[in-house]
Amino acid sequence: MAKEVTKRSENYSQWYDNLVVKADLAERSAVRGCMVIKPYGYAIWEKMQQILDKKFKETGHSNAYFPLFIPKSFLSREAEHVEGFAKECAVVTHHRLMANPDGDGVVVDPSAKLEEELIVRPTSETIIWNTYRNWVTSWRDLPILCNQWANVVRWEMRTRLFLRTAEFLWQEGHTAHATQEEAIEEATKMVHVYADFARNYMALPVVVGHKSPNERFAGALDTMTIEALMQDGKALQAGTSHFLGQNFAKAFDVMFTNKEGKQEYVWATSWGVSTRLMGALIMAHGDDNGLVLPPALAPIQVVMVPISGKDAEKNAALLEKMTACKKELEALGISVKIDDRDTLRPGFKFAEWELKGVPVRLAMGARDLENGTVELARRDTCEKVSVDAEGVAQRIKDLLDDIQKNMYAKALKFRDSSIRKVDTWEEFKEEITKGGFLFCHWDGTKETEEKIKEETKATIRCIPMDSVECIEEGKCIYTGKPSHKRVLFAISY
Amino acid sequence: MAKEVTKRSENYSQWYDNLVVKADLAERSAVRGCMVIKPYGYAIWEKMQQILDKKFKETGHSNAYFPLFIPKSFLSREAEHVEGFAKECAVVTHHRLMANPDGDGVVVDPSAKLEEELIVRPTSETIIWNTYRNWVTSWRDLPILCNQWANVVRWEMRTRLFLRTAEFLWQEGHTAHATQEEAIEEATKMVHVYADFARNYMALPVVVGHKSPNERFAGALDTMTIEALMQDGKALQAGTSHFLGQNFAKAFDVMFTNKEGKQEYVWATSWGVSTRLMGALIMAHGDDNGLVLPPALAPIQVVMVPISGKDAEKNAALLEKMTACKKELEALGISVKIDDRDTLRPGFKFAEWELKGVPVRLAMGARDLENGTVELARRDTCEKVSVDAEGVAQRIKDLLDDIQKNMYAKALKFRDSSIRKVDTWEEFKEEITKGGFLFCHWDGTKETEEKIKEETKATIRCIPMDSVECIEEGKCIYTGKPSHKRVLFAISY
Repeated sequence: MAKEVTKRSENYSQWYDNLVVKADLAERSAVRGCMVIKPYGYAIWEKMQQILDKKFKETGHSNAYFPLFIPKSFLSREAEHVEGFAKECAVVTHHRLMANPDGDGVVVDPSAKLEEELIVRPTSETIIWNTYRNWVTSWRDLPILCNQWANVVRWEMRTRLFLRTAEFLWQEGHTAHATQEEAIEEATKMVHVYADFARNYMALPVVVGHKSPNERFAGALDTMTIEALMQDGKALQAGTSHFLGQNFAKAFDVMFTNKEGKQEYVWATSWGVSTRLMGALIMAHGDDNGLVLPPALAPIQVVMVPISGKDAEKNAALLEKMTACKKELEALGISVKIDDRDTLRPGFKFAEWELKGVPVRLAMGARDLENGTVELARRDTCEKVSVDAEGVAQRIKDLLDDIQKNMYAKALKFRDSSIRKVDTWEEFKEEITKGGFLFCHWDGTKETEEKIKEETKATIRCIPMDSVECIEEGKCIYTGKPSHKRVLFAISY
Repeated sequence: MAKEVTKRSENYSQWYDNLVVKADLAERSAVRGCMVIKPYGYAIWEKMQQILDKKFKETGHSNAYFPLFIPKSFLSREAEHVEGFAKECAVVTHHRLMANPDGDGVVVDPSAKLEEELIVRPTSETIIWNTYRNWVTSWRDLPILCNQWANVVRWEMRTRLFLRTAEFLWQEGHTAHATQEEAIEEATKMVHVYADFARNYMALPVVVGHKSPNERFAGALDTMTIEALMQDGKALQAGTSHFLGQNFAKAFDVMFTNKEGKQEYVWATSWGVSTRLMGALIMAHGDDNGLVLPPALAPIQVVMVPISGKDAEKNAALLEKMTACKKELEALGISVKIDDRDTLRPGFKFAEWELKGVPVRLAMGARDLENGTVELARRDTCEKVSVDAEGVAQRIKDLLDDIQKNMYAKALKFRDSSIRKVDTWEEFKEEITKGGFLFCHWDGTKETEEKIKEETKATIRCIPMDSVECIEEGKCIYTGKPSHKRVLFAISY
């Protein structure tokens, strides 16, 4: 095997970087901080897109497309928003190149300077709310329920493939509502759409909750999040949904006439998930042999490897059997690849498809042909069994369902075992170094949150909304002041 | 009707601009030359994407994603390429904003200047071939068959919604091959994929052909095109496929070891269609009442309008009937919308859905309910008939097929009647002012092509490959020099 991956126990971070590249998911590009998403990685992202897009449409949203560029002045309209994004903006200043008068190549044409600089969108609230102003006159024009699939740029100083890149792909929903209640309902609905997707497709048992004020999106009144736990015990924010109040409507003067004939500002939400989900998927499930993909998101669900011998006739019979089985599986909606490359040994192929995380492997040799059997290997547990070739398609379908469930159950068990109630500061400092979520009382102040972060690097990942019971009287872990509920702390990506 | 559209005969150009905005397809944004694609317009683009994406995958291509930014120095590597794009580049020079020290808002932080400027991709050959260098070692790594769906930016001075915008959406296929023959075969295959899509889905009878050397893509050895004819007699280039030879492989040093063990440069193609197709669709089929969408691309294929009266019970019965019919149609794979808005009159709704080009309208009133009838109106011919409600779903399905065919037949008739053989320069100058394609002999030189363009604005749209017989001996329309085939001239968008 040419493509060995660092073991998780040796260096988790290097294991991740290794895996992303060696499983052909993505690689660094010639442009600082920007990645190339390779076909195999992109196929997983496409599956995510299709499923999410369907869910967005089922909840009444339509796709649209807004400009890549944002006039610089738009960013400053909402004070907190510009504060949050100004430091990581790619700025377009010119619109033409010219031949270099002093030598080779091209240089920026100084006479083609833009009157106002344009920012490559880090997120689109400002350009979208500037557009919505012309779309809304009366309550009849509301709600507006738009989503866009797009690329965005945030000039991060330290980047990692999928987890934090200067350019990334995402979807951003931007909705406009007549009432505060409706906007809060929308933001809440969408964070649960994300949670369902994470649980049922990514096999990720996320915790849904509110961010503390400190960790809110720049310009939001409330940010809801889905938080996932990685195998190294760090938390990863996998998607967020924001209630923006009337902040952007006020900044861009978006008003409507309500049913009583009065002028009011419009209420807003925004919500997004990005290619960061790819990082979560890899880190939550991968093992030392490579990726482990949940069947619901695997571009190839079953790989078939013929164990060919020297007898050409038998080899042809093997391929024929496999092709028939492939057709049966495809009729059940299962995606199959037959790996009939004749320059590689079966063992090499096994390792390659393990590295790429294909959920089920079917192997068949001359003896199987005689006995009417096939060998099935499942990627999640690495178990192998020899089974009857008769009825194997249905068996594989059931096996895929079982793998999906088992991956979720395993991740849930890991998550639940990692959530610990901690009630003293000494214990907190000790426990946080072991990873996982610490479930603690907090006095609700920004100052305390910041001090805890300074001393331990831990942040409040969320104040759980469901799935974790948190209402309880107690005392802040750091200040000892009264607290009415526990929150989840962790060190995060 | 609040939303009247200028008549085509009065001002075709204004008719188009009107239609795009009033049918809710797109609008200008606050950023010069950039458009907002509205949900209804985006839904048509999504249908185009889905169909094309399926065709690309059926022909063996995978999607991937490459960076938005291109280092400035990459552009200059291929001499013709930089010549073609340098004048319309959006250039990123800085990566941070800061609070304005002299007043409000934010300004570019001069200390955050990039070492090398980045160009927002106008097309991705350079960044992709720089990537392919690391993907290719031997003939076993070839072919590479990648496509990407992306946004690109070309800083055009005069922009029009969909037809020519500073930012547009497109797909760009980039393939790498071991032999010249294979690359030419690929480029040819893809221009025919585009032609099939245009004919069978857009109902556009395009002419497929080669561009003259003058009109080739910057860096290509051959550019193939699909050319469509708009109702005003102007041609529109709707998609192109390029054979790039080894130009980009040489510029980015992409070599492979062939089966004989020798090092060779890789052969390349690229091919793309963009949101410009939306412009072609609108201009080829629209009429003075609005859009006319081919059923294969219509987001709503059937709209149902109840003709409600004062009797609430009867109104409820109407809606019930329509809902049942909608279900039947949806079971046949047809998309249906029931317009039950109670604040608008039926006549207003009729006009609105005509404007939006919905292929079939079904209306039903109290009398229809008694008689067991419905009224069907087809958008392409504006004909209305009263038919039995019994079996109407199948009837509508057949009607949609008929509309699709009729739209193509009508456009084909228009195109064919507009192709005229012209053999004298006097006649050419006269005929070209009437629009359409002039099918003429040309001596094959750049100089002649340029002079014809100067004098008449006409360009060679293509040297037809099929569907139009062009091999014939003759004399150049302009110079009288010998010519071996006819080419198509037109004034174009």
